[in-house]
Amino acid sequence: MPNPSASYSFTVRIRLERRPGTFARVAAAIAEQHGDLGAVDIARTTSEHLWRDITVAAGDTTHAQAIVDAIAVVDGVIVEHVSDRTFLMHLGGKIALAPRVPLKTRDDLSMAYTPGVGRICEAIAADKERAFALTSKRNTVAVVSDGSAVLGLGDIGPEAAMPVMEGKALLFKRFADVDAWPICLDTQDVDEIVSIVRNIAPGFGGINLEDISAPRCFEIERRLREELDIPVFHDDQHGTAVVVLAALIGTARLLRRELSALRVVVLGAGAAGTAVARILVAGGVRDIVGVDRHGVIHADRGDIDHDPLTWWGAATNPRGVTGTLDDALADADVFIGLSGPDLVSADQIALMAPEASVFAMANPVPEILPELVPENVRVMATGRSDYPNQINNVLCFPGLFRGALDVRATTITEEMKVAAAHAIAEVIPDEQLGEDYIIPSVFNEDVATAVAHAVADAARTGGVARRMPDGAAPLRIPGAPV
Amino acid sequence: MPNPSASYSFTVRIRLERRPGTFARVAAAIAEQHGDLGAVDIARTTSEHLWRDITVAAGDTTHAQAIVDAIAVVDGVIVEHVSDRTFLMHLGGKIALAPRVPLKTRDDLSMAYTPGVGRICEAIAADKERAFALTSKRNTVAVVSDGSAVLGLGDIGPEAAMPVMEGKALLFKRFADVDAWPICLDTQDVDEIVSIVRNIAPGFGGINLEDISAPRCFEIERRLREELDIPVFHDDQHGTAVVVLAALIGTARLLRRELSALRVVVLGAGAAGTAVARILVAGGVRDIVGVDRHGVIHADRGDIDHDPLTWWGAATNPRGVTGTLDDALADADVFIGLSGPDLVSADQIALMAPEASVFAMANPVPEILPELVPENVRVMATGRSDYPNQINNVLCFPGLFRGALDVRATTITEEMKVAAAHAIAEVIPDEQLGEDYIIPSVFNEDVATAVAHAVADAARTGGVARRMPDGAAPLRIPGAPV
Repeated sequence: MPNPSASYSFTVRIRLERRPGTFARVAAAIAEQHGDLGAVDIARTTSEHLWRDITVAAGDTTHAQAIVDAIAVVDGVIVEHVSDRTFLMHLGGKIALAPRVPLKTRDDLSMAYTPGVGRICEAIAADKERAFALTSKRNTVAVVSDGSAVLGLGDIGPEAAMPVMEGKALLFKRFADVDAWPICLDTQDVDEIVSIVRNIAPGFGGINLEDISAPRCFEIERRLREELDIPVFHDDQHGTAVVVLAALIGTARLLRRELSALRVVVLGAGAAGTAVARILVAGGVRDIVGVDRHGVIHADRGDIDHDPLTWWGAATNPRGVTGTLDDALADADVFIGLSGPDLVSADQIALMAPEASVFAMANPVPEILPELVPENVRVMATGRSDYPNQINNVLCFPGLFRGALDVRATTITEEMKVAAAHAIAEVIPDEQLGEDYIIPSVFNEDVATAVAHAVADAARTGGVARRMPDGAAPLRIPGAPV
Repeated sequence: MPNPSASYSFTVRIRLERRPGTFARVAAAIAEQHGDLGAVDIARTTSEHLWRDITVAAGDTTHAQAIVDAIAVVDGVIVEHVSDRTFLMHLGGKIALAPRVPLKTRDDLSMAYTPGVGRICEAIAADKERAFALTSKRNTVAVVSDGSAVLGLGDIGPEAAMPVMEGKALLFKRFADVDAWPICLDTQDVDEIVSIVRNIAPGFGGINLEDISAPRCFEIERRLREELDIPVFHDDQHGTAVVVLAALIGTARLLRRELSALRVVVLGAGAAGTAVARILVAGGVRDIVGVDRHGVIHADRGDIDHDPLTWWGAATNPRGVTGTLDDALADADVFIGLSGPDLVSADQIALMAPEASVFAMANPVPEILPELVPENVRVMATGRSDYPNQINNVLCFPGLFRGALDVRATTITEEMKVAAAHAIAEVIPDEQLGEDYIIPSVFNEDVATAVAHAVADAARTGGVARRMPDGAAPLRIPGAPV
């Protein structure tokens, strides 16, 4: 059974007889079921009874039910009500609209809406770029999903994808004050998705594609990047790539190695694995060996006549390694897994060089659990929050879009992504770097700001930043005849 | 020159020499230009100068500039900065995202996002209807426009339409706590618009179509109503229709007349005029005579072989009136204009019956100005806020969607619209009704609640309400094996 966690916690309201020892028996029942007792409040009392709300963390829903059942049979106790805390948190949705201007008086109304708003419309009709200054486009990102590859759950459809996209919107707001709105699509047709996103783009300053299955995600992103003049970013690919590169930069600093001197093995050549390999190349890594279910990817392998495998064949594996994962791992410095649960054994990791690093990113169950890696591993990282070194996309996408929006970037370049990775890694000063601290915590408040600045600078340097709004207001009334 | 108003107001920062009479000369200059001096603040002082921010209302942008120019030449005064208050209000957009749950701790994160969110996704994947309880769909409306018929400005495109749609979102929130998000489309193709709205619908509880030009708006609305199981409402048509019927109900009560006994002339058979005529029929009005640019619409007119004129020919004009607007107005009780500026003369209105009512809805310049109507007019209403009896859609759409969302309505029926009209009218008690008060103010806080209740009741009665969420929580953990 998994360890108890907040994501399987519940609050139970119980009525207890006012006799000494009643609550102790409840606590004992919970302990006996290995539940984790949290907050205990008194909700109401009478002379004979008292009602308590107690919060308990469980390992999964079966475990939670077992705990409730155990409480229900305690002598002198009635279970009145059980609230699943995670469901409670989602009740009614997690996002709403926040007005940025008051509508208290008729004057407010006449400026925010008709007739005053007409002048704003005319100003934008005369110059569309003004939409960035005068509408929410300035700060807004559409979080677009078709529900085809949601978390590890697969193709669950647009309604079921909504809670994730709302969660993403929360993270955008919380970490970088970006206003993101979920757009969950009732189609999985590539042409339709491209057409829809292109056509809803006028109101948004950026597009974050999310949980769209491969290979459709490649074409959708490529076409939208070509057609739109705002950033289009598939977070599952590029957000992952940025944070993996950040973790590798941190690791290289800790180990006093150059990126260009590291031998890196990437297991998994799907959407995320390919994006990771591409950013590693852009970031200066020279020796990358990719491995998929058919073994090591090399230029002479017969089945690599299509993208992204063609790219792998051409751009990676400079030593011409062939064979299996074992062949790739021999003397490798870094293993990066973007594949599936439990796909690598301790014996295989033991083939790696001394002071090896393992980034096992499969979620929720990594390629190898941290407690299983052999002695030669110095740095161990996963995508999970319950181990050190969590490599989490939240470190990237809020600050990345913050920076892109701030300079009204027309696109996200490879240089902007590499700059984001360096910014994330550099949040940790040299003297704080350690085996368990190669990448900052998701709650490190410095990360998003650092990423935003680095991304904005890279956009300006790369010529994809539109002019910043100038603080100085004109002496002319907008719209007044000159 | 129009009267000074907030929608053309500006704030000017001036530096004044500290000599007696300097500010008085500024005030005199503003008065001489017929500007309306508002708030005056001191921003900063030194021993020799002081800086004031003064707010001035003008009639239009030319007027505003003339006032600024007049201030600039006052002896001892330097104009440092002019801020157009309406532009200032729109700077950076008028809407943002509001989180409904905190993300303070790792536990919050693990419930609102991964891994906890996965359980919510699974629950919805198992039963899509749960999206209403567990996502923002419950309370969210897409405000969709293609920018083809924005206010009186016409086809100004999606970017320029955004300020209006954001304003609409503000009104939804302000008056009925509905979360609306603007979706401005970069296409005016009917098939594409229908496809886009259908495909983004999973995340929304309702669709408010806005400022889409006729005749495309008819087909778009009809097809979306057929294809979607959430309310689709074209506010320019049906919102207008509801508030006009509300005004007519108030007028009839004031005049102690039955709706069925009134002779009503509708000038304009476009989108809004047709929607008004339809709701009048549904609301119990029997004698409606429609007039368009070719004259009175009657069953034998040769050019009415297409909708909506066919409908007019069949459903209106029971007395078989023919001819011109003059013929229609003879002895009519009510004139409703949904046409253009200054299209009706006082002499024409004088043809109407005693105690006539004139609803001149063309905006911003009505069919006839209130100061021009002859003696036989007892009730005069317009769409404008600067005359009594403003017939404003804001009275309808927030409460209407509130009611529809509250019962998870699958559509908006004619009965729901008629119920909304009665609810609006009934907010004014009999003893308060008067010639200048036949419809409530947009700031009357009772309106949205009354409309929401009436609409929800009508939805339930009409069988288009889905089951309400039940307050009682289960003793079982959601997702736990039974």
